[in-house]
Amino acid sequence: MQIFPPREEWYNRQQRLQQKLIQDGLKGCLISQNVGIYYFTGSMQTGYLFMPADGDPTYYVRRSIARAFKESQVRTVELGSLRQFGKQLESDYPSVFISESDNPLLIGADMDVMPAQLYVRLAEAIPQAQLKDGSALLRNVRSVKSPYEIDCISRAAEVAAAALEEGIAALQEDMTELELIAIIENAMRKRGHIGLMRMRGYNQEIMTGVVSAGEAAAEPTYFDGPAGGRGLSPAAPQSVSLRPIGRNETILIDIGCCIDGYTIDQTRTAVIGELPSELQAAYETAEAIIRRSEQLLRPGTKPEQLYAQALEMAEAAGLSEHFMGFGRDQVKFLGHGIGLEIDEWPVLARGFQDPLEPGMTLAVEPKFTFPGLGVVGIENTYLITETGCRPLTQSPERIYTIQI
Amino acid sequence: MQIFPPREEWYNRQQRLQQKLIQDGLKGCLISQNVGIYYFTGSMQTGYLFMPADGDPTYYVRRSIARAFKESQVRTVELGSLRQFGKQLESDYPSVFISESDNPLLIGADMDVMPAQLYVRLAEAIPQAQLKDGSALLRNVRSVKSPYEIDCISRAAEVAAAALEEGIAALQEDMTELELIAIIENAMRKRGHIGLMRMRGYNQEIMTGVVSAGEAAAEPTYFDGPAGGRGLSPAAPQSVSLRPIGRNETILIDIGCCIDGYTIDQTRTAVIGELPSELQAAYETAEAIIRRSEQLLRPGTKPEQLYAQALEMAEAAGLSEHFMGFGRDQVKFLGHGIGLEIDEWPVLARGFQDPLEPGMTLAVEPKFTFPGLGVVGIENTYLITETGCRPLTQSPERIYTIQI
Repeated sequence: MQIFPPREEWYNRQQRLQQKLIQDGLKGCLISQNVGIYYFTGSMQTGYLFMPADGDPTYYVRRSIARAFKESQVRTVELGSLRQFGKQLESDYPSVFISESDNPLLIGADMDVMPAQLYVRLAEAIPQAQLKDGSALLRNVRSVKSPYEIDCISRAAEVAAAALEEGIAALQEDMTELELIAIIENAMRKRGHIGLMRMRGYNQEIMTGVVSAGEAAAEPTYFDGPAGGRGLSPAAPQSVSLRPIGRNETILIDIGCCIDGYTIDQTRTAVIGELPSELQAAYETAEAIIRRSEQLLRPGTKPEQLYAQALEMAEAAGLSEHFMGFGRDQVKFLGHGIGLEIDEWPVLARGFQDPLEPGMTLAVEPKFTFPGLGVVGIENTYLITETGCRPLTQSPERIYTIQI
Repeated sequence: MQIFPPREEWYNRQQRLQQKLIQDGLKGCLISQNVGIYYFTGSMQTGYLFMPADGDPTYYVRRSIARAFKESQVRTVELGSLRQFGKQLESDYPSVFISESDNPLLIGADMDVMPAQLYVRLAEAIPQAQLKDGSALLRNVRSVKSPYEIDCISRAAEVAAAALEEGIAALQEDMTELELIAIIENAMRKRGHIGLMRMRGYNQEIMTGVVSAGEAAAEPTYFDGPAGGRGLSPAAPQSVSLRPIGRNETILIDIGCCIDGYTIDQTRTAVIGELPSELQAAYETAEAIIRRSEQLLRPGTKPEQLYAQALEMAEAAGLSEHFMGFGRDQVKFLGHGIGLEIDEWPVLARGFQDPLEPGMTLAVEPKFTFPGLGVVGIENTYLITETGCRPLTQSPERIYTIQI
């Protein structure tokens, strides 16, 4: 059943963005990306959202106007010709766009996702304004989730847990990685997974995760995560391959799904038989890291502290080179925000210093890669509460072992 | 089994791009998008491809360098710091980047997909050059497929046909649209569908297609295609819903899959029982349009002629308002190129005047939308041959009828 946010949700989101616009000296913000528009309007139709630093936003829609009218929670109008968009904005927001001042009129935009071609056209269409990169500001607003959003992520967690159970129940020797993920994906889809996962990073793609065993899991890839996977082809160079899953090798089941727009991300390690002792020890280090991370997952902690602590623990275990990928293919983070997109802020990485706040949701994923052998690790999605954290992931935490 | 293109394929692609660069007065082209990089290198790792108008290209890779070295068919080097990229290019291509001339050094770029943020950074990093929008040029090069590419699309067509058969075999009254697509998707995934579909258009997303019945199929959406679908949520406002499929209503099964990077797109209409006569008649008009389109699908035809002919036939049948969506939610094309992405060039739409060429692959999809009732239509993917066209779609053409 579709659940909708309470009415005040839209106003709260608007308020939080407007506060940041004012702090950053921006007169408004133009949002072009479907997910960003959805976040502030409740609708994902083609068009633009203009949010003034003060006053109510307007959703300018190209298509489908009928659906946008039905869904949108903010003022919604038809977008005229893009060339006239500046005039349309000026007529709707004269106090923003008509100015006597010599200072340039600075308007934020989601320049991390907006294509350059569109950026050039918008700059021409709105000559009154100077578009500034507002990506960081928008990502910061989205990083703190409402109770409604947390409920959506929890429902996604429930679906992922059920799908993992179905996958484990079907897991057997010599089935291919592709066969295993097909079972898991089908279990998620039947329960309402929307059929795709959203990722903000340019050129980053994600299926429903990485299900990969033995040396195939340890193959490096472009994907901005600790586990790559061989993939089905150089045209799909990540996640599952056609390799059959063997005995006594680590099976990484890193999966997510998207329910009503919200994603979950979780990882469990499985084995048919027994893990080699080296991998067993690394798995235990991953568990120890996630336990210690839970201590730090509370309001006030700087995200980069979590990464630093994990690095230290990996080093103490003699596993530095294997942590979060191997050697030069390592990624430099321990986890990431998650919500409408799977790669939200904050990132648990160097440079992320704004303290954690209640309502943030974070996937924490310590993993160790052993070329030729595989990847072990664990990943939970957590909610930052007033006093600490609460896991949203529902799958029991253990090595999923199929006896032989 | 993974099939790779013959060695000369890479050289042919390079030649075709270089010819167009010279025609357009560009000294080279910088490609940032994963699909574009894959097309010219055989690898899809993170980085940039620089193609000079004359001489050999270089693939500058950030991650994974190991995998790029293994897969790439062109010169491949590590990308240094992005800030120094201009210097790296200058040292690799002095004859391009060091010039005595006062004319600006024009370099094409895939600005229709490259984010604005990256565009600004690249412009700073490569101050010697002026980036120009090279999207049209790149899309033109890709529109003509090689025998290898046609074989990939044919293999995708085979998978889609098998999946349709499985879906039809399972189709029964009161199953939901979601249940039906889950069966079809699972059938495709088990046969090697990579788990996602690629679409170039900004904010456009595609699952494995639209499976939608009755009035739900006729709901308008942002999606740039003739059939929308209710979707599972405003956060996934297209394709399947939880609506149960009823008797005597049209079931639109518009599906695609992606094998080794190449996509197919096809549509069939199904019904449990019998179509209402109005929809039956519209379906027959769609079939008549596709038959007449086949006559025009040959080298020399302007793509826009196909759209014009279809419009005329829809008008003659009294169905203008229902053609390719209803009323103001109509889309203005009859079909589209298809390959690595589902929305390739040419588009069968006004303004596309460059004549069809042998090797082009096109999805032709006449459809009629009846609000409150549903969508009927048919879609085949065709190859333009030396003398005409050949369907790549393998599913038999008929209304798939489940007797009651």
